[in-house]
Amino acid sequence: MSELKNDCLIKSLMKEPTTRTPVWIMRQAGRHLPEYRDLRSQAGDFMSLCQNPKLACEIAMQPLRRYKLDAAILFSDILTIPDAMGLGLHFVEGEGPKFRKPLRTERDVESLSVINSKVDLSYVLEAVSLMRKELDGAVPLIGFSGSPWTLAAYMIEGHSSRDFSRTKTWLYKHPEILHQLLQKLTLSLIDYLNAQICSGAQVVQIFDTWGGILSHEAYEKFSLAYIREIIANLISRYDDREVPVVLFTKSGGNWLEEIASSGCNAISLDWTVSLREARRRVGANVALQGNMDPAVLRSNPESIESEVQRILDSYGSGSGHVFNLGHGITPDIDPRNVEVFVEAVHRYSGA
Amino acid sequence: MSELKNDCLIKSLMKEPTTRTPVWIMRQAGRHLPEYRDLRSQAGDFMSLCQNPKLACEIAMQPLRRYKLDAAILFSDILTIPDAMGLGLHFVEGEGPKFRKPLRTERDVESLSVINSKVDLSYVLEAVSLMRKELDGAVPLIGFSGSPWTLAAYMIEGHSSRDFSRTKTWLYKHPEILHQLLQKLTLSLIDYLNAQICSGAQVVQIFDTWGGILSHEAYEKFSLAYIREIIANLISRYDDREVPVVLFTKSGGNWLEEIASSGCNAISLDWTVSLREARRRVGANVALQGNMDPAVLRSNPESIESEVQRILDSYGSGSGHVFNLGHGITPDIDPRNVEVFVEAVHRYSGA
Repeated sequence: MSELKNDCLIKSLMKEPTTRTPVWIMRQAGRHLPEYRDLRSQAGDFMSLCQNPKLACEIAMQPLRRYKLDAAILFSDILTIPDAMGLGLHFVEGEGPKFRKPLRTERDVESLSVINSKVDLSYVLEAVSLMRKELDGAVPLIGFSGSPWTLAAYMIEGHSSRDFSRTKTWLYKHPEILHQLLQKLTLSLIDYLNAQICSGAQVVQIFDTWGGILSHEAYEKFSLAYIREIIANLISRYDDREVPVVLFTKSGGNWLEEIASSGCNAISLDWTVSLREARRRVGANVALQGNMDPAVLRSNPESIESEVQRILDSYGSGSGHVFNLGHGITPDIDPRNVEVFVEAVHRYSGA
Repeated sequence: MSELKNDCLIKSLMKEPTTRTPVWIMRQAGRHLPEYRDLRSQAGDFMSLCQNPKLACEIAMQPLRRYKLDAAILFSDILTIPDAMGLGLHFVEGEGPKFRKPLRTERDVESLSVINSKVDLSYVLEAVSLMRKELDGAVPLIGFSGSPWTLAAYMIEGHSSRDFSRTKTWLYKHPEILHQLLQKLTLSLIDYLNAQICSGAQVVQIFDTWGGILSHEAYEKFSLAYIREIIANLISRYDDREVPVVLFTKSGGNWLEEIASSGCNAISLDWTVSLREARRRVGANVALQGNMDPAVLRSNPESIESEVQRILDSYGSGSGHVFNLGHGITPDIDPRNVEVFVEAVHRYSGA
């Protein structure tokens, strides 16, 4: 593997000093880019793109050609594991992910097998290898998956939901079945994220997209406990380098202390938390990633630059901050505003 | 007016000692009750019920006949002010509130007038008077409205939304227009809540349902600043009694200190916050209301009782706790489970 030319992201995630604040964007490869929309209209649906390593690699490179980003991220979905378990992941325009065979009974859970990534998700691992080769050390590559709780919530509902009422009914009425499911997902995630690392992912991020709908106590028991188990079982050094783990619990601002104690190296924050406050609470132990409201990118260069400055000031000086949005970029954003955003982070943070 | 026989709620909101923890339920009058569904199927749509003081009064009484609740709440909607401003509030089954004439331009905002509740919302004030009479001092009556930010968000979108993108575009691109709107709403809310108090509301609750979608800084500027102004201008004593103000910012757990400094007497909390933690942070200054996940009511008596106990323990001993759900009860809940819930709060908290 070639030497990493820009290790700003990894250093910041490990709380080591950098010359400026690194920046990347959740969902940086995707629908806001016209070149992605072109390629997708030729090639078919979203899952066909993910499952074609060459196309996935090309898509992961697209944002790096436009913007001076400090990281690439695997082009894939957070729900590949349940798809590999046979639930039939597909996407309906404007409605998000859906499963053809959602979990309905205890027997559905019992019949699921822990995945073997090399066999069941080889297309992801191939994509990771190709991306590493294509990047040629320019910037690090981030691998990822959804958290066990987030996967379980989609698997039980069959789709996204305002209140995940089926899943919560399991949680309060049949917690033992839910725990059985979460345990299988945890073992699958350990296998999957380690396989991504061995294929070339230099950072891994766990997306706990729906952790924030739980009570404090339920979050600990049904989400964070399993994430802890995963992190404890991940390869922490590979190819002579630390492999930092980033944990993103959307709407998890109430639980930063617990999240910081999960073993992760960095917490990715949504925009509702002030970075100053988050740093005061947990900054001694973990790096912080985030956290501009994606809606700011809908405004104008002046507002974008002033929000970037405000957020950099709010973190303050010293190492340990990775700039990002507080959630994925939305498809309606003008790439010119993204360019303003990325350049503002670099300009105001130092280099 | 007759003497208040059960003043447990008001005492707890003022942090005075009570013999047990009072309990009421957000949306206690409404679709989960078969007698409400009967009445509604005879009488027409939701707004017709709200606008008919006699029916509204009857509906507000229904849950009190079933459950030993410590408060009644005005049967109305959080969006009556924009309706009175001419936006045309109506409800589409399964889709929530909608406005026929959402705000689209600066001129739309300029042409809005601050409401005069006695003229524009007389049906609400009549309903409040009737309910007070009907209650005959059994329990206190809670009045309410949505917060300026929450009203503005619905008025600009025209309906509920996952990310309120139009509203946020105004916020980041045209903040001055949004401030103009928020100021008109603030003056209207002061008039409206004071009129409710003069008509008989003994507690008022401000529902900041969408405050939690903002960044910390934007929440301060676009939501909390206006709520502060409202609270400072509310009648604090009426009919020889304090009139406590409860503030509910859904997903506002990150900002408890700021919320507590708004002048409110109590903070209503969603279920993502631990009461122990919230009390440690702000319990010296304000009472706390909440915060069981409404999903627990979908389970069984054992789980409901154990969650009630856990939440009571989490608050701990001493005054200043009002039990409630962390959000409105959902229409699918079996009233037998609600009965278990209310009785468990009373039994485990003392009397």
